[in-house]
Amino acid sequence: MTNISNWSDYCVATYRCYDAKADFHKKALGIAVGMTVGSWTDLPETKKQSMQKHLGHIVSIEVHEPGESPEVTERYADIRIAYPDVNFTSELSALLITIFGKVSMDGKLKLIDVHFSERFYQAFQGPKFGLDGVRDLLGVHDRPLFMSIFKSVIGHDLAGLREQFLAMSLGGVDLIKDDEILFENPLTPIDKRVAICREAAEEAKQTTGQNILYAVNLTGPTFKLREQAKKAIDAGATAFLFNVLAYGFDVLHELSSDPEINVPFMAHPAMAGCFYPSQYHGISANVVLGKLMRLAGADIVLFPSPYGSVVMPREENMAIKHALLTQDFAVDYLSEGADATNKLKRSFAVPSAGIHPGLVPLILRDFGHDVIVNAGGGIFGHPMGTVAGGQAFRQAISASQNGIDLQSYASSNGCAELQSAIDTWGVRS
Amino acid sequence: MTNISNWSDYCVATYRCYDAKADFHKKALGIAVGMTVGSWTDLPETKKQSMQKHLGHIVSIEVHEPGESPEVTERYADIRIAYPDVNFTSELSALLITIFGKVSMDGKLKLIDVHFSERFYQAFQGPKFGLDGVRDLLGVHDRPLFMSIFKSVIGHDLAGLREQFLAMSLGGVDLIKDDEILFENPLTPIDKRVAICREAAEEAKQTTGQNILYAVNLTGPTFKLREQAKKAIDAGATAFLFNVLAYGFDVLHELSSDPEINVPFMAHPAMAGCFYPSQYHGISANVVLGKLMRLAGADIVLFPSPYGSVVMPREENMAIKHALLTQDFAVDYLSEGADATNKLKRSFAVPSAGIHPGLVPLILRDFGHDVIVNAGGGIFGHPMGTVAGGQAFRQAISASQNGIDLQSYASSNGCAELQSAIDTWGVRS
Repeated sequence: MTNISNWSDYCVATYRCYDAKADFHKKALGIAVGMTVGSWTDLPETKKQSMQKHLGHIVSIEVHEPGESPEVTERYADIRIAYPDVNFTSELSALLITIFGKVSMDGKLKLIDVHFSERFYQAFQGPKFGLDGVRDLLGVHDRPLFMSIFKSVIGHDLAGLREQFLAMSLGGVDLIKDDEILFENPLTPIDKRVAICREAAEEAKQTTGQNILYAVNLTGPTFKLREQAKKAIDAGATAFLFNVLAYGFDVLHELSSDPEINVPFMAHPAMAGCFYPSQYHGISANVVLGKLMRLAGADIVLFPSPYGSVVMPREENMAIKHALLTQDFAVDYLSEGADATNKLKRSFAVPSAGIHPGLVPLILRDFGHDVIVNAGGGIFGHPMGTVAGGQAFRQAISASQNGIDLQSYASSNGCAELQSAIDTWGVRS
Repeated sequence: MTNISNWSDYCVATYRCYDAKADFHKKALGIAVGMTVGSWTDLPETKKQSMQKHLGHIVSIEVHEPGESPEVTERYADIRIAYPDVNFTSELSALLITIFGKVSMDGKLKLIDVHFSERFYQAFQGPKFGLDGVRDLLGVHDRPLFMSIFKSVIGHDLAGLREQFLAMSLGGVDLIKDDEILFENPLTPIDKRVAICREAAEEAKQTTGQNILYAVNLTGPTFKLREQAKKAIDAGATAFLFNVLAYGFDVLHELSSDPEINVPFMAHPAMAGCFYPSQYHGISANVVLGKLMRLAGADIVLFPSPYGSVVMPREENMAIKHALLTQDFAVDYLSEGADATNKLKRSFAVPSAGIHPGLVPLILRDFGHDVIVNAGGGIFGHPMGTVAGGQAFRQAISASQNGIDLQSYASSNGCAELQSAIDTWGVRS
């Protein structure tokens, strides 16, 4: 433990390290020295003086022994290491290589948190729009937002996409997103797709009066993404879906901070299963789908919910929500529960996969008013069709906002669409 | 199981899926349809005709029940799914999002192999130099190569790096690499670092007669990497170290295939611990540090050895070696053991971390003649100094090449350096 009163020049990584008998202090010291100056005790005193500012430090070690509480079944330690920010540049790649490069391979060790130095933090502007900016674009402030996904996109032509887009729009969605597996293709190239969907959005607006953001999938060779984004914007793109983990956090940061790319970014969690699900390895969900996404500039972040078809434990969802909405990431807020107003705008949380109207009360209970309810099969699978599928969700959102259970709401308001959804999928509580 | 006689238009992913009671056929079908056309059985017949070419297929399902052999302690299945290559573009990001995007989060499921369609495969030239090209650059064909790492770099100035570089060079190394955590910094900016190390290499050559490749760490914002690489080459860079997993495989591919970036790439495994160590999640080492690195153009690939301080099981090392040196990745070679001559050049394997001269016989036993012996502490920690530390390794390599055990070789050739290394670290067999 080093007695440093001011950690503001350090980025602090928290690791959970499992080992039945390790000397955790030795392990921590190995990381603090090994991942910074390389060696310390054998340095001459004069050299130590010049190297001091580059040396990593142990902030804390919390050892947990099996049996100390019912949850602890294996010996582990939460180890916090402070890395001087003078050692790395202001890219997330540099930070991740420093705090979880070689160390990621060294035993049962998971990166479970990270706090940023003042200098590092200042290099990021976070979401350009954020939750409130997205609401402003849509002109919707008084309710959770509602998003839908195309039923299928691969192999469909522009007319097919337009038809799906229109039906979803008429059902009352605020946002529509591409499938993350739709890449540049001759049937629906990005500029044509954007144009036709924008036209469908305008057509639906005649009926619904609603604005719609269409998150088109930004794909292609990394070095051409900026050009591709601008081409899509020229064609009328209003938002981008982006597979952040396939391209790296820096690319999201560079794109989202480009003044000429002035639309919201929606981060897809594809490949996140490489990082968070293992207890012993990788990077926890609150970091990989929470802090790093928000820091890198995602206005909207998708992740598996605890309720649907692809699931993540509820406490991990809540940690993501905390990171996206309320948490301050500065190293000043190292202690648990310390929440200042984050200098970054908030990112919208989107618990996803297998969502049907009967899950809306749970989503609002866990995420509150500032959430995007996101559905695919729960819209298209509706017995009365796609438009009704959307309407059932909007009814479920209204009911939940007013604290009325879905069945009562459907009955007393004569909502055939919601009733049919309840009959099909039930209501979870 | 689909009866398709020709898989050459498909990329085939192999997943190992653990589940005590799942219907693995249903699971496989869910992936094959869900990650391609979205839905199938409810499509009208005419639509099926146009969608057929976009549909994913189950190639095989191999279920293993606990107890069927001593190694199988849990129920699992190896599931092979064929993805039509018409569905995605020729980037590794697009392939990975398709085969391991959403699926990565769906239960205990690890991507353990991938085979490429003809079209996809043809889009990659692989290593520009490869193992033989690196040997040609160095003019060394008759022995394993020898590489060393700076003892420490952060906080050192150019004179300090030069001194380390010279000592390593005089010890007989072929390659010297930067630390992966050395980023752009005012003390040793990339162009000055390249120039001073090149000068040291020339100076050492007067004594040793050896060429040296210096792999300088290519870092910075993603969209500026190409420019940064060219700046380093203008300053005399002869090779790049690259943190592939922080930037994505596509970036390595785009850089390594750039005709103006005509130097070998050395892939560092930093962050690989997010991918391979978990039994249940992520991507196995042969894919993430083997196939994908070689396909994306890494001439040299580092990974933790089974012998040293940060370890990987031996069978995983051997699978990486197979991928880097002998395996054909085309979908035609789906069946186990089928090895044609790969159209790609071979990549050099570099088992790393905690290597001392006493481990050289093991390295050569496992990797043969075409390997790079890579050391850091095993050179600097030598009781007789850095130059002697290098010499001890060269002596150990000579001994092992000639099938002579290290102790006999040291004794009969009067190798004080090797003897001292043996006394310090011992010999493993």
